[in-house]
Amino acid sequence: MGWGDLGAFGEPSKETPNLDQMASEGMLFLDFYTANPLCSPSRAALLTGRLPVRNGFYTTNAHARNAYTPQDIVGGIPDSELLLPELLKKAGYINKIIGKWHLGHRPQFHPLKHGFDEWFGSPNCHFGPFDNKALPNIPVYRDWEMIGRYYEDFKIDLKTGEANLTQIYLQEALDFISKQQASQQPFFLYWAIDATHAPVYASKHFLGTSQRGLYGDAVREIDDSIGKILKHLQKLGISENTFVFFTSDNGAALISAPKEGGSNGRFLCGKQTTFEGGMREPAIAWWPGHIPAGGVSHQLGNVMDLFTTSLSLAGLQPPSDRQIDGIDLLPAILQGKLIDRPIFYYRGNEMMAVRVGLYKAHYWTWSNSWEEYSKGIDFCPGQNVSGVTTHTQEEHTTLPLLFHLGRDPGEKYPLSFASDEYQRAMERISVVVQQHKVTMVPGEPQLNVCDKAVMNWSPPGCEKLGKCLKPPKSDPKKCFWPH
Amino acid sequence: MGWGDLGAFGEPSKETPNLDQMASEGMLFLDFYTANPLCSPSRAALLTGRLPVRNGFYTTNAHARNAYTPQDIVGGIPDSELLLPELLKKAGYINKIIGKWHLGHRPQFHPLKHGFDEWFGSPNCHFGPFDNKALPNIPVYRDWEMIGRYYEDFKIDLKTGEANLTQIYLQEALDFISKQQASQQPFFLYWAIDATHAPVYASKHFLGTSQRGLYGDAVREIDDSIGKILKHLQKLGISENTFVFFTSDNGAALISAPKEGGSNGRFLCGKQTTFEGGMREPAIAWWPGHIPAGGVSHQLGNVMDLFTTSLSLAGLQPPSDRQIDGIDLLPAILQGKLIDRPIFYYRGNEMMAVRVGLYKAHYWTWSNSWEEYSKGIDFCPGQNVSGVTTHTQEEHTTLPLLFHLGRDPGEKYPLSFASDEYQRAMERISVVVQQHKVTMVPGEPQLNVCDKAVMNWSPPGCEKLGKCLKPPKSDPKKCFWPH
Repeated sequence: MGWGDLGAFGEPSKETPNLDQMASEGMLFLDFYTANPLCSPSRAALLTGRLPVRNGFYTTNAHARNAYTPQDIVGGIPDSELLLPELLKKAGYINKIIGKWHLGHRPQFHPLKHGFDEWFGSPNCHFGPFDNKALPNIPVYRDWEMIGRYYEDFKIDLKTGEANLTQIYLQEALDFISKQQASQQPFFLYWAIDATHAPVYASKHFLGTSQRGLYGDAVREIDDSIGKILKHLQKLGISENTFVFFTSDNGAALISAPKEGGSNGRFLCGKQTTFEGGMREPAIAWWPGHIPAGGVSHQLGNVMDLFTTSLSLAGLQPPSDRQIDGIDLLPAILQGKLIDRPIFYYRGNEMMAVRVGLYKAHYWTWSNSWEEYSKGIDFCPGQNVSGVTTHTQEEHTTLPLLFHLGRDPGEKYPLSFASDEYQRAMERISVVVQQHKVTMVPGEPQLNVCDKAVMNWSPPGCEKLGKCLKPPKSDPKKCFWPH
Repeated sequence: MGWGDLGAFGEPSKETPNLDQMASEGMLFLDFYTANPLCSPSRAALLTGRLPVRNGFYTTNAHARNAYTPQDIVGGIPDSELLLPELLKKAGYINKIIGKWHLGHRPQFHPLKHGFDEWFGSPNCHFGPFDNKALPNIPVYRDWEMIGRYYEDFKIDLKTGEANLTQIYLQEALDFISKQQASQQPFFLYWAIDATHAPVYASKHFLGTSQRGLYGDAVREIDDSIGKILKHLQKLGISENTFVFFTSDNGAALISAPKEGGSNGRFLCGKQTTFEGGMREPAIAWWPGHIPAGGVSHQLGNVMDLFTTSLSLAGLQPPSDRQIDGIDLLPAILQGKLIDRPIFYYRGNEMMAVRVGLYKAHYWTWSNSWEEYSKGIDFCPGQNVSGVTTHTQEEHTTLPLLFHLGRDPGEKYPLSFASDEYQRAMERISVVVQQHKVTMVPGEPQLNVCDKAVMNWSPPGCEKLGKCLKPPKSDPKKCFWPH
């Protein structure tokens, strides 16, 4: 989902009444970011509070490449990483993930081995249908074991766009919340649904209801679901004791627009890129009785902050034996403070850009290669900013391209290198970047090796269902990451 | 000002708390248009309820050219046109215009000859400073006579961007409202301020206060002023008896961005064009106790509707002896109804496009000429949609380019000519266009002839001030309209 997909963020059809109301009852973050323009690294960052280049969710196969966890990925979340649910356990929290895990699907990466107590959902994206020969269909797990596969047991009709998944995930959430409220145990629910990822789907009730087509139908269903979750918390009388945060893991995939891609508002480009459209996200914090209603924050925030903020809410300290990139947002949320901190925009192993205050300096620019672009793969459809949305990787490390995001949110007008403003801003930014680079210890890259043998052929529980498939011979290779 | 310039419409700095509150207390129009992508024709349409091609505010000097009322324009609003204030007088209204008139500056076009009782402001844009030899500085009128000139008596500091004009216009508005309330006479106030037109200015108190630079400072000052006007109405106890509508006369001038141009959100291009960025406007209706708070309307609206709606509010009928294009919006505003009506996008003498429901058909496409573009004049900076933002005038009258503005607000993905959807939509649109063209009787074009002798050399009142200038010899010529 992109920054511009909600009514509260200026989507012209204004079809998200529940999220808009959540914002009017809580706090809207206008300058909130994901840690990566792609799903898996972003989700790993959220759960570890650390940049993907630290927690291993990146590749060194080629320079500045986005990578994620397709079925043939060998890596996953390392045991050495401490995930938010592992830490929350110490404060008595019961943790559940509903939806897409995406931090590795091999046995050692199972979410229940990394702090979650319950899981309903899939390890990978809902791509398919596959023939179970070249590729297995993605399994859906309940806790330790698979209970079926997408397209086989969990229908997704690619022709009509109909699928009931968001409804199933919603019911799982409501049930979990009810159970926790009944047992009076504190809980952490990570509602990491697949929608609006392509192939886009919505349940029958929502199909055809949006001005925006199928993508809009999916947004409406998410909006409706979140409204139901918030109302459920209120009905159970625990809303004033429950902190809820809504955001997305990367900008809208404009490559899939208009049918299956959303909107990044007026920001440049989309998913896969380190322009604002790829990484600035809609974000809303909600906690009635604590967060002043109708608040708006310009705090530079990041999904990694949800790690640190959640620990803070639980009365826990973040680990002190490692670099944590997330900050505690509570002073911003509860007291309206502004904490000075940079935002780093990484693509794989490269820091492409950095934001300090309202300035954003690009040290590298790239949309995608000419080769991919010539095949029709366009991460910036209808947009072309000369020297900025480049199709070759352009290095600007000695003289970064600098934008003022207040005057120029669309990254169209680089500041003159000769201006005083450029000099002053870069002096400040250079210190931040130097400090960042000097102290950077990259983690062991997890997204380098692919092997068809590790795909979801025979997940735990497959025997009971008669759904075990025979893996091919192991043949590990360097993964190919074109973007 | 552009669609995307207000917080309520998704401007990322969200610096318009008063307009946002006006929206939350009133009704936000998301699909509201101006009648022309340029100022004079748009304002003529607002005050006559008629398309510029009918009321004469267009040119036939060349095909599909934007034209307006610079100082050397010979034409202006014809006597045969009936303006809103002329009609409101019949219902006892006192009418005042504050700000830019722009419907002609020669004696016969004076606003007090066209229904207004009072005027404070200028006949033309605040361009300058001029040397009073080749060009006179623009006069500022109080009622019948000039009281000074811009840059001479009304300072605009182009270096610092400081000017007190919006504050002066605000005070005029507050005073007029107070006076009318005291005399218990119904009033029509047309608060047609110059800001945010380039050269952009703000008063000292607002300079440097916006994240968005000088343009943002100007927006903040407008926002603050409107907040003060609304509070004034409330303080005087007449807010429930006063209908207020906020909108703009054309999309943000991206040509002046980033320093002096605003935002059209995610819409394509800006001022001067018939893409959504050129003509879709921010719009808010406010009338406490009558308009349900927090309403949102997808009614296709147009500045011409303010003519008909205002008449309706005053209990008057629109003239029946001529074609009126504006509709009465009260059913949409008060009862949430949706009235089926098309939006026509004209550029000079050509109907470039039409919107029917969510479909927009382009019969002609043009941004500007290659010649102008090669000089750096770009109405669509950073945007380029192949075959759409064309630099030659492209005719599509036999097979219009069709967009679905719900799925594709940015006009990036024309529908396939071969699709059923295209056929179905165009069948409906063709009927609308045919009917429009058959019944169209263009008015006498007012914006064809230019003559330096008609400039503001010696406006009425200049003698008292010693500010009369000697006009050059009359030398009428065809005006040159490049866009």
